[in-house]
Formats: sequence, C-alpha cells, structure tokens
Amino acid sequence: MRRTRFSDWPCTIARTVDLVGDWWTPLVMREAFYGANRFEQFQSRLGLSRNILTQRLERLVEEGLFERVAYSERPPRFEYQLTEKGRDFFSVLAAMLRWGDRWLAGEEGPPIELRDRRTGHLVVPEVVDRETGEPIDVRNVVATAGPGLPKHLASTLADGSIHQSPRRPV
Amino acid sequence: MRRTRFSDWPCTIARTVDLVGDWWTPLVMREAFYGANRFEQFQSRLGLSRNILTQRLERLVEEGLFERVAYSERPPRFEYQLTEKGRDFFSVLAAMLRWGDRWLAGEEGPPIELRDRRTGHLVVPEVVDRETGEPIDVRNVVATAGPGLPKHLASTLADGSIHQSPRRPV
Repeated sequence: MRRTRFSDWPCTIARTVDLVGDWWTPLVMREAFYGANRFEQFQSRLGLSRNILTQRLERLVEEGLFERVAYSERPPRFEYQLTEKGRDFFSVLAAMLRWGDRWLAGEEGPPIELRDRRTGHLVVPEVVDRETGEPIDVRNVVATAGPGLPKHLASTLADGSIHQSPRRPV
Repeated sequence: MRRTRFSDWPCTIARTVDLVGDWWTPLVMREAFYGANRFEQFQSRLGLSRNILTQRLERLVEEGLFERVAYSERPPRFEYQLTEKGRDFFSVLAAMLRWGDRWLAGEEGPPIELRDRRTGHLVVPEVVDRETGEPIDVRNVVATAGPGLPKHLASTLADGSIHQSPRRPV
C-alpha cells in the first residue's frame, strides 16, 4: 500500500509531514539526537526491522538530514552523521516533546527531561514568535500568501482552499 | 496493514508521533487552525476520502483535540471545535512550518506566511528554551530520567537503551 505523498504540496507543513509520516523516521532522528550513529545502534535501540531501518536511513541521507561517512574501509562500515539540516530537525521533536509532556504524560510526569549539557539546567522547549518571544496562540494568527505560493493558488487563499492538493498535469 | 503503535512508549515524542503518524491527521489539524470545522470543509479542502476523514476526526475527538458539537438538530449536524489541547497542537505544526520553510521551501521562499491577526506583523515560529529564550541546539542537550520514567528502565538510561520498545506482559 502506497500512501498519499505530500512532498510537493505548496505548504511546508505538508512537506515536513511527508517526512515525519514515514513511520519510525522521527524515532530514528530521536536516537540520532541521543547519540546513535551506527546501523546496529539504531536497530537495537528501536527494535525495528532491518529492512525498514535501511529504507528510513536511505531516505534521510537522500533528504540531507544525515551524511553517510565511512569509519572503516575493510570491512566497509558507515556511520550516519547529522548534518546541520538534520540537527535543526530537533526543533520539531522538541515541539512534540513539549506538547506530549503537557498532554500525553501520565500523572507521574514526563518520562524524559532535557538538560543543558554544560549547566545541568532543565531545558523546557517552547514554540514562540521570534519577534515577541511570546508563545504563539493560534487564535491570533492568520495564514497569508508567501512569496513561494504558486500564482494560480493565490486567488483562492481567502476561502482557505489553497490547502487542497495541487492540481498538476500528469 | 496495521502499523506499529507508539502510544504507550515511555517517551512523549513517540506518543505524539503515534498521533502525527496517522496520515492526514496533521493536515486535518492544519485546516482546523485555518478555520475549518465541518466535515465537508475538511473534505473539500484536503480532497481525502470520506472514510479516512471520518476515522481521523473520530480519533481526534477521542484524544480530546476536538469537541464534537451539534449545530443543527434536524437534521443532526456537527461541528468539530478545537479544545485547548487541540489549539496547543498548533505549536507542533508551527515547528514543522519553521523547519520546512528553512529546509524544504524552494528558492522562491515559503508558500505561506503567518501573520498576527491584530497587528499584521509576520509571525516566525522559533523553538526555544523557555528559561533562556534561546533556540535549542541539540548538541548542548542531554536526555535524563524524568519522574514518569518506569523504574525498570531507569538503569538503562546511560546507554540510551531506554528508547527501546517497552517489554510489556502480553
């Protein structure tokens, strides 16, 4: 079964969802953030099939979140090193962690806490408006046409229908 | 095909991924943030099947992101209204938008811009450490045991293996 692909939608949320929606991919990234960089490490920590893990790592290399770097020539062995794009993806996981800790943790509190490696202080992620530094309240926000919005979709922005799947020539 | 469920893992990223990983769910939420609240609106804007949309909306009601509210008695008609938990989920989409705009937008720039409804100023999401207000750099962060971490997993935290699928009695 092939799922719907969102990667060419005129919406970078949809494009990101396309990546996140490959089951396991966000958890592979989480393991990378927690220090894994070899196939066997990802595999033993997550317990997923080698087949799926191979697919996920290949896509993450293709998309530029990992760089595949040889650490041994004979036998040939590779590590998956986070690129800047890959490291920056932690912001997406951090937002999930924040929301999940607030709404999905049990009464006993969050299972994991982030701490600053240098000072030990508790790091609590928050998604803010860069200009004001305030948490973003969706009720105060509207979506408007950006420079990358295809022209034929711009006129439909007012009624929200830009969010339809783009009609493309096949 | 039933996918792996992450909803009872001792990690709120995994639990959130379980929700996000239902294809279409983040885009259903996106439409809600952009003003949709009726079945037909979600359906026509996203162009997904009625069957999948029904499943997604049901789960989002079950999970408490939407409240299903009657707006007509005869015939019976319902609206999907965002709860506080649902509105707060915008922070996850905002983090995806930020990362996607930075790494997946074309040369022409982001297709959509967020603006403050009251002042019109451009809203650029940023994921920061609540205490310092600084963007979080994953290289400076470590994961430590939180109060909700099951005891039998705590001893394995140092080597990262807490992130394995929990072994549960079946």
